[in-house]
Amino acid sequence: MVNAGGESAGNPEPCVVGVDFGTLSGRAVVVRVRDGAELGTAQHEYPHAVLDRELPDGTRLPPDWALQVPSDYIDVLRIAVPEALARSGVGPEQVIGIGTDFTACTVLPALADGTPLCELPEYTARPHAYVKLWRHHAAQAQADRITTLAAERKEPWLQRYGGKISSEWEFAKALQVLEEDPEVYGRMERWVEAADWIVWQLCGTYLRNACTAGYKGQYQDGAYPSRAYVEALAPGFDDFVTEKLEHPIGALGAKAGQLTAEAAAWTGLPEGIAVCVGNVDAHVTAPAAGAVEPGQMVAIMGTSTCHVMSSDQQGMVPGMCGVVDGGILPGLWGYEAGQSGVGDIFAWFVRTGFPAAYAEEAAALGRDPHEHLTALAAGQKVGEHGLIALDWHSGNRSVLVDHELSGVVVGLTLSTRPEDVYRALLEATAFGTRTIIEAFETSGVPVHELIIAGGLMKNALLMQIYADVTRRPLSIIGSAQGPALGAAMHAAVAAGAYPDIQAAAHAMGNAERGVYQPDPERAAAYDRLYDEYRVLHDYFGRGTNDVMHRLRGIRAEASA
Amino acid sequence: MVNAGGESAGNPEPCVVGVDFGTLSGRAVVVRVRDGAELGTAQHEYPHAVLDRELPDGTRLPPDWALQVPSDYIDVLRIAVPEALARSGVGPEQVIGIGTDFTACTVLPALADGTPLCELPEYTARPHAYVKLWRHHAAQAQADRITTLAAERKEPWLQRYGGKISSEWEFAKALQVLEEDPEVYGRMERWVEAADWIVWQLCGTYLRNACTAGYKGQYQDGAYPSRAYVEALAPGFDDFVTEKLEHPIGALGAKAGQLTAEAAAWTGLPEGIAVCVGNVDAHVTAPAAGAVEPGQMVAIMGTSTCHVMSSDQQGMVPGMCGVVDGGILPGLWGYEAGQSGVGDIFAWFVRTGFPAAYAEEAAALGRDPHEHLTALAAGQKVGEHGLIALDWHSGNRSVLVDHELSGVVVGLTLSTRPEDVYRALLEATAFGTRTIIEAFETSGVPVHELIIAGGLMKNALLMQIYADVTRRPLSIIGSAQGPALGAAMHAAVAAGAYPDIQAAAHAMGNAERGVYQPDPERAAAYDRLYDEYRVLHDYFGRGTNDVMHRLRGIRAEASA
Repeated sequence: MVNAGGESAGNPEPCVVGVDFGTLSGRAVVVRVRDGAELGTAQHEYPHAVLDRELPDGTRLPPDWALQVPSDYIDVLRIAVPEALARSGVGPEQVIGIGTDFTACTVLPALADGTPLCELPEYTARPHAYVKLWRHHAAQAQADRITTLAAERKEPWLQRYGGKISSEWEFAKALQVLEEDPEVYGRMERWVEAADWIVWQLCGTYLRNACTAGYKGQYQDGAYPSRAYVEALAPGFDDFVTEKLEHPIGALGAKAGQLTAEAAAWTGLPEGIAVCVGNVDAHVTAPAAGAVEPGQMVAIMGTSTCHVMSSDQQGMVPGMCGVVDGGILPGLWGYEAGQSGVGDIFAWFVRTGFPAAYAEEAAALGRDPHEHLTALAAGQKVGEHGLIALDWHSGNRSVLVDHELSGVVVGLTLSTRPEDVYRALLEATAFGTRTIIEAFETSGVPVHELIIAGGLMKNALLMQIYADVTRRPLSIIGSAQGPALGAAMHAAVAAGAYPDIQAAAHAMGNAERGVYQPDPERAAAYDRLYDEYRVLHDYFGRGTNDVMHRLRGIRAEASA
Repeated sequence: MVNAGGESAGNPEPCVVGVDFGTLSGRAVVVRVRDGAELGTAQHEYPHAVLDRELPDGTRLPPDWALQVPSDYIDVLRIAVPEALARSGVGPEQVIGIGTDFTACTVLPALADGTPLCELPEYTARPHAYVKLWRHHAAQAQADRITTLAAERKEPWLQRYGGKISSEWEFAKALQVLEEDPEVYGRMERWVEAADWIVWQLCGTYLRNACTAGYKGQYQDGAYPSRAYVEALAPGFDDFVTEKLEHPIGALGAKAGQLTAEAAAWTGLPEGIAVCVGNVDAHVTAPAAGAVEPGQMVAIMGTSTCHVMSSDQQGMVPGMCGVVDGGILPGLWGYEAGQSGVGDIFAWFVRTGFPAAYAEEAAALGRDPHEHLTALAAGQKVGEHGLIALDWHSGNRSVLVDHELSGVVVGLTLSTRPEDVYRALLEATAFGTRTIIEAFETSGVPVHELIIAGGLMKNALLMQIYADVTRRPLSIIGSAQGPALGAAMHAAVAAGAYPDIQAAAHAMGNAERGVYQPDPERAAAYDRLYDEYRVLHDYFGRGTNDVMHRLRGIRAEASA
């Protein structure tokens, strides 16, 4: 980090602001356009975090729901952006553009003017009026029908999504609204990605971004699923695309509009600067890591992991989230895959399985729970804990595309300690990543490099496990806030400072190569555990024993 | 409990002392012969508890080991017996006999005079010189060979043990000593059940009790396995039976000898009173619960669960621990089955999975962790937690007889809370008991009544789950210390106060009928979960996916 205060005074270079909207908080970063130096940053936690048990007024939510409150996002603009600017020492007049990235598919029902339905007094107690967070997993029944019907009708777009449409995406979530709360559905005039809604708030213009339209909205080769298909999905859904979804699409890195006076007042930035078209946290991270060549896979490891990669090969990778022409970079096929629970699983374990005696010891050693468990687990040999886990506590995005799967731990004994289970969970997520990489390669889409970004890259044990399990050297992104940096790079392009994202990536992005090297002995030991993982993966995940779905069903009945 | 102090002064009735040697502590109870009234009790925790990581001198132990220190048992005689006597208000002169019961198969190598090998200075650092606790599970390889060879040779006794010999028993544990520490094996002159060793210390006479000889020593129809068989097991093992194991056998309830002066000094009891032949904690509990009729199954639920039942039907129950003619009561077939981990699993969960926030809340409410988790779980509907678990954290005794199996939890999500897993573990043990009951009934050995004894009977939620899962009313033993009461009843028989155990049971034992009634709706819901349990039970337990054994193997290699 550069001492930019002084520099700003001496040499007022152009800067951009990137704002990353994550699952629990938003982060703003002020970045120098010339070289990507991060001059100041600030974070703001969403006051309502994730609503997964009840609405703010106490209305209970069924299992698998996950909602958010849109005003929390505005708070990030009002608090984190001015704070980052103040910390950077950069003068507002130096800022030439703002770019954003968001979790996806995070989507909300709104009026034609962008007002979220949950802000209408008559709908504050209606769960379906709120933002559905990416990990809202209660639309599986709808997703299953979307997939089945597409397969029956041989819809050409289905293979672009690995053969399965996720319950996390726009169509499944909208169909759930229609079927469970037709009144809210009827009132909704726009079904808006939060990624686009926030840009709408910044510049007053609603543009759908090409990334979520393609990956989450099933928009391929210039069209959404046909009216005939949508009609056949459910009565009353026929005009979903034409009435509520369809809207002009903006290219990635394009200018959506100019900062409004209101948004300028929120952020402390100059009115009229360039506001970039919306984008997705994972996808903007690829250029932030300098990944602009085919086969450079970036794994953004946080609460979940997204794998994004551009390729000159078009392949139909089973269980990928999607392939979109130019979905990450113009001129290349953009691939996305993912694991719906990673850091979320480790956090769940610490929340529910970290005993008081451990908490005391960790506090005495000045470690947070993750550091403590990691330190205790780090000395183990591969397989010493005797466990194998399935990392499906938040479902499985790739390669099974089934959010009603659930987590498993096998091998528990009376000697099993918290650090043993913790390590088994770390390893399970690494096995999940290996499964995804193998799906790409066996589908003719080679993976040349694995680059890690996101908060979990700071855990050296986890990184070494990933290197050993995948038998690949790991590159590590040069920034601790890849998405915000990536959003800022897109702002630079939108403001005209660079001709395209590739050029911005060369100047502003970077990753360190070969930071973790696989150890052949450990890799061999992990091969054996990975074989066990794959057997359990297929047994529980491909229907041999459909117990996880039946348990969900029983749970739903019992909770009803 | 009767105020016996005054009564003792006014009417000095005959009393007996029962001493129950459990897994972590010993408990003495002073009992009135006339009606079984418990007049005073005291408990003493073993100073060394269970050695499962290292010897007292720090010598490391491999996985699956569980040892004890014999002097800890003597401490119980020296501390708990006088304390119970003092609390009872009974005068020593009123005590006419002492009886004991022990965990089994808990077994030690000794010299011909009863000196444990671990007390010889040259062997204090030798793991194989110590007591092998019942749940020492490191002799599985030996047990497998014992079973395989018996099956190959069509040994007639094999079916008396459900077709499998357990790694917990006398032959497997002795064979492990021979193969891993031949010097200790060579020096050992007696391979003694702790149940008999403690009686030896009390009266100076070594008698093998009929119960452990039959259930743990493979003694059937008046003979041990043949020399030809034992010879074929391993070189050097040929004279194991004749040199180290065989010894006169005492009937249950018979007098083994008289209390020695030394033991009288330890206990504060009169020299010369009757000392009863040794016995096993589970088996003595049956008469303590008044269970002297065929088909009355007593489940003694503590760290593990033992199921004991007498029957007039001879059946070959797959996976039972054993059937012994008169093994519980003269004139009936005595059956034993069991679950090797029950309370141990719940304790493991509290030790490793009870978060600090829960500990604080429990403390504020004045609840111990088990009470707190039980209270949190009690309000749930059946299946609401969405989990299914296998209760094999300490292996599976019945019906799979495989101590290298391990625990599983399926259905974990980011919403899963500690009380959810806890309840799933409670339920898993109930499914385990149902599996055992079904094995008896489908083998032509009817179970007419299920009587619960042991420390876990105080958990009302657990009891209700057992009633619902088994679809049976539960009877509850009238004593909180069934084994010690049962041991005292045997002492009364040994002292001549009753002609036989049945007569003593009618006078001194009792159980309350129908304390928990199955609820038809919950029972139906549990039927569905039980089906899931059985599918996973067979998948992981019967070799479809032998992952648990492979994980053990990998763990052993990694720990080597």
